[in-house]
Amino acid sequence: MESLLTVERRLLLSCPDRPGIVAVVSGLLADCAANITSLDEHAEPANGRFAMRVAYTLPSARAQEAQSRIEAQLDGEDIELRFSDPATLPRVAVLCSSENHCLTDLLWRFASDELRGRLVCVISTSDEHRTAVAAAGVHYHHLPVASRDEMSAHEEQLLELLVGKVDLVVLARYMRILSEQFLEAVSCPAINIHHGFLPAFKGGRPYEQAHERGVKLIGATAHYVTAELDEGPIIEQDVVRVSHRDSSDDLRRVGRDVERVVLARAVRAHLEDRVVRWDKRALVF
Amino acid sequence: MESLLTVERRLLLSCPDRPGIVAVVSGLLADCAANITSLDEHAEPANGRFAMRVAYTLPSARAQEAQSRIEAQLDGEDIELRFSDPATLPRVAVLCSSENHCLTDLLWRFASDELRGRLVCVISTSDEHRTAVAAAGVHYHHLPVASRDEMSAHEEQLLELLVGKVDLVVLARYMRILSEQFLEAVSCPAINIHHGFLPAFKGGRPYEQAHERGVKLIGATAHYVTAELDEGPIIEQDVVRVSHRDSSDDLRRVGRDVERVVLARAVRAHLEDRVVRWDKRALVF
Amino acid sequence: MESLLTVERRLLLSCPDRPGIVAVVSGLLADCAANITSLDEHAEPANGRFAMRVAYTLPSARAQEAQSRIEAQLDGEDIELRFSDPATLPRVAVLCSSENHCLTDLLWRFASDELRGRLVCVISTSDEHRTAVAAAGVHYHHLPVASRDEMSAHEEQLLELLVGKVDLVVLARYMRILSEQFLEAVSCPAINIHHGFLPAFKGGRPYEQAHERGVKLIGATAHYVTAELDEGPIIEQDVVRVSHRDSSDDLRRVGRDVERVVLARAVRAHLEDRVVRWDKRALVF
Amino acid sequence: MESLLTVERRLLLSCPDRPGIVAVVSGLLADCAANITSLDEHAEPANGRFAMRVAYTLPSARAQEAQSRIEAQLDGEDIELRFSDPATLPRVAVLCSSENHCLTDLLWRFASDELRGRLVCVISTSDEHRTAVAAAGVHYHHLPVASRDEMSAHEEQLLELLVGKVDLVVLARYMRILSEQFLEAVSCPAINIHHGFLPAFKGGRPYEQAHERGVKLIGATAHYVTAELDEGPIIEQDVVRVSHRDSSDDLRRVGRDVERVVLARAVRAHLEDRVVRWDKRALVF
Repeated sequence: MESLLTVERRLLLSCPDRPGIVAVVSGLLADCAANITSLDEHAEPANGRFAMRVAYTLPSARAQEAQSRIEAQLDGEDIELRFSDPATLPRVAVLCSSENHCLTDLLWRFASDELRGRLVCVISTSDEHRTAVAAAGVHYHHLPVASRDEMSAHEEQLLELLVGKVDLVVLARYMRILSEQFLEAVSCPAINIHHGFLPAFKGGRPYEQAHERGVKLIGATAHYVTAELDEGPIIEQDVVRVSHRDSSDDLRRVGRDVERVVLARAVRAHLEDRVVRWDKRALVF
Repeated sequence: MESLLTVERRLLLSCPDRPGIVAVVSGLLADCAANITSLDEHAEPANGRFAMRVAYTLPSARAQEAQSRIEAQLDGEDIELRFSDPATLPRVAVLCSSENHCLTDLLWRFASDELRGRLVCVISTSDEHRTAVAAAGVHYHHLPVASRDEMSAHEEQLLELLVGKVDLVVLARYMRILSEQFLEAVSCPAINIHHGFLPAFKGGRPYEQAHERGVKLIGATAHYVTAELDEGPIIEQDVVRVSHRDSSDDLRRVGRDVERVVLARAVRAHLEDRVVRWDKRALVF
Repeated sequence: MESLLTVERRLLLSCPDRPGIVAVVSGLLADCAANITSLDEHAEPANGRFAMRVAYTLPSARAQEAQSRIEAQLDGEDIELRFSDPATLPRVAVLCSSENHCLTDLLWRFASDELRGRLVCVISTSDEHRTAVAAAGVHYHHLPVASRDEMSAHEEQLLELLVGKVDLVVLARYMRILSEQFLEAVSCPAINIHHGFLPAFKGGRPYEQAHERGVKLIGATAHYVTAELDEGPIIEQDVVRVSHRDSSDDLRRVGRDVERVVLARAVRAHLEDRVVRWDKRALVF
Repeated sequence: MESLLTVERRLLLSCPDRPGIVAVVSGLLADCAANITSLDEHAEPANGRFAMRVAYTLPSARAQEAQSRIEAQLDGEDIELRFSDPATLPRVAVLCSSENHCLTDLLWRFASDELRGRLVCVISTSDEHRTAVAAAGVHYHHLPVASRDEMSAHEEQLLELLVGKVDLVVLARYMRILSEQFLEAVSCPAINIHHGFLPAFKGGRPYEQAHERGVKLIGATAHYVTAELDEGPIIEQDVVRVSHRDSSDDLRRVGRDVERVVLARAVRAHLEDRVVRWDKRALVF
């Protein structure tokens, strides 16, 4: 009988802080025979906000009840509740250009179930990756952009392929700036990998800048894309040590290793519902 | 009136996992008008155990009630509950030998309130640190040990200075092996800094061994002291990159920087009631 | 005319230390109109040895003369001189089993010219990677091994494919122990990636052991293969932070990211003639 | 006899690249019976420059000859040669304010011979550190600065204490901006520790900015002081991982651990003549 089946659910919650939220959620979950398998929360006195991630298992028949009762109880202004079912894999599109290190890595990770999502398509401004993407059983769309003038037509084509069809867009060295209109229209989050340690080295030449400035560490930053370039909430960052011996080509090469890992960790955190956005910041549970 | 005073409390809990523990604790806390300021938990399917750290604020008048009701509700076999009051600073003794890098660092951290404890005494097998320790306003005891034969008398002297007088013993490069009898008699936890990346390089010559083996990273490990040498639960570890250019003296020097920081982080975590011991492992919330 | 062509050469040198070696080598190179583009050396008082790596450019017509004169001048006991021509790419074979994370990574790096070698074949105990390897234009050999008894026949087959045909063997999670006889017969270096931070966690279950021991960092180690298991000279190591939240499956997953990068760095260093072996240690210039 | 005494010398060299520099230097050193104990060099095709650090031992009687012959041979435009005698310890002044973590660390390192220099004085805008500095046997000068208007008089006082009396000024959280005039007048290098990962987070509030931006790593940067604020050549940098759980006070606390180590490494590299300045960059051998 379905009612005996145990299912898993996750709740991601963000709201103004007040006493008793944990008690309300955990109490209602206990009422519905749920077992909390993981719970992490964060209260910030400085802005008076509270966020929580709860993973729980419960009898399939009571999953909807638990959700409805929590929603009813925590209803109110400025409260965000996101329930999700880990068995329903989010649909992901990867956008890229001719550089393939992040793409290759993501293809491997989706194929190896390291990333709990369904890679539904790869859209590239270059035609080079068709074979590799096809070999992974993923749809490949080649949408070239010759100049800035073509971006608006390009965005139209992207929207056609994405709207309502994917739950997450990953910019894996896509190297184009998407417009505010596009970001609104696509109506799902987009994660970008920036090849620099933000907020240093914004823009398109971070490795050259890093070399000229003689920094001793270079980094990569995965962040949600917002209308303001390289200013979106940071999900993950990492660095690697370099020296004067490294030319800007060397920085580019070692940077690729960091970019891949940082992007993969960010996508993984997002797909596991670990990320809460608070204005300019991202909390990662 | 006292009842209007808000106080802070912490609960560290370890028990067999079962549904509803979070609900019970958070519900009782809500009943007692408490506000949870931080909650972290861990359930491990592999061993069926559960652990949780909760920090909360509540009216002073209800602190004892909250504690008693939680204790009553969660009473049972194999359950550990540790309530603590952050305002009551644990008493700490530091044991060391002639090397003073960890000692100097700990003196600075206690003086700067980075470590929330009360450093009540320093006991050293060397007389060299008397001035520095006195300058920090801390009692200094010089207990020399000429040979292994004297260890048992030495341990007697230590026990006299420690039993009932301190809540934590920190071995800051103390360089002596304490007996099982001593560890039982002292009846408070002891944290040791090992100058190697455990479980590699146990024993007294880790840097020489690391050099001979040509490792590319050296590390330090802070762990609870148990009767089995260098086998106690690991609280914190870190590493630093080295190369063939580094002699074993160089390893010793860069190792000191890691030892200091690793020991300080471990002591801090312990003093903030963040560490739960599960057999050979330490969970750090 | 050929004599006007500028070519690049590298010299890797290891010998007993004595005054004047740098002067001899750089003097003879200057005599032959060479320009030193990179020079790194290491003298170790403790064992009285000296090692040096020099990269230089010179007129093609004088490359042989420079080499011969250096060889004549530095002739003697216990001196190793290795001249190489970066334009001649070393031939590499990758051995693996069913796990493909290192293989996928190496395929990408050879294809992207991050690794300056020629990947001539992949030999796997599993048949799964045929398509991916073929897509990269590399020969694939499936040599299954059902049991330990078959290892000696397996090694025969390997030798047939490798002896005289490759300059480096890379064990990319090959998961079998090669015999001393094999290592001698293959007569080229072999680099292995060990999924643990050597010398801790030798053997086949490092992640399980790491989890049981509750370490706070896990690592990977790339080393030359010698007859003694996991005891060969270490070329590269790295670690990643973990916590009690990570199951041994999680350790395995995050470990894969470290394994890949550590193996690639070691292979790259070897292919660029940066590694000198001194008994149990490897110097990496 | 003096001539039989072996002494150590170092040469730091920066010049336009041309073939044969290593041969000239090592040849002249060999002529003077010197043994090169360490040699590191860097040639940069992009800017056509060359730099080298050589450490050597030779008979005391020939030290001056070696230096003179190298100077004569390498004489020319745009060539910098810096010979030094490791036995002559550079004189160091530390400038600080009320924060004492870097000061405490430097006092310990000079006292422990980790830093090969002579700490001749500590100058502080606060009077708090007098006892600690005196205990280390170092002169303490309290030079308060109430406002920006007083900076010019303050700089006068500083110059009186420093000019001709020290070889290096270390700004150990000195928290004041020194004028271009001062930097010229003091005529010795000054190293500053910036509590942020430059070039991100310039200025005086890096931890607050890091918190607001939600970065996942914070860092510290040691650099030579130039007239342009936080723009001097970077000698050393490092980072530490943080999360949303860390308030800006927490960032400040963990930042202190990075600041200390980064500053100490930079000062050590400078005192060992390992740093060459090329415009906006510092090479560290």
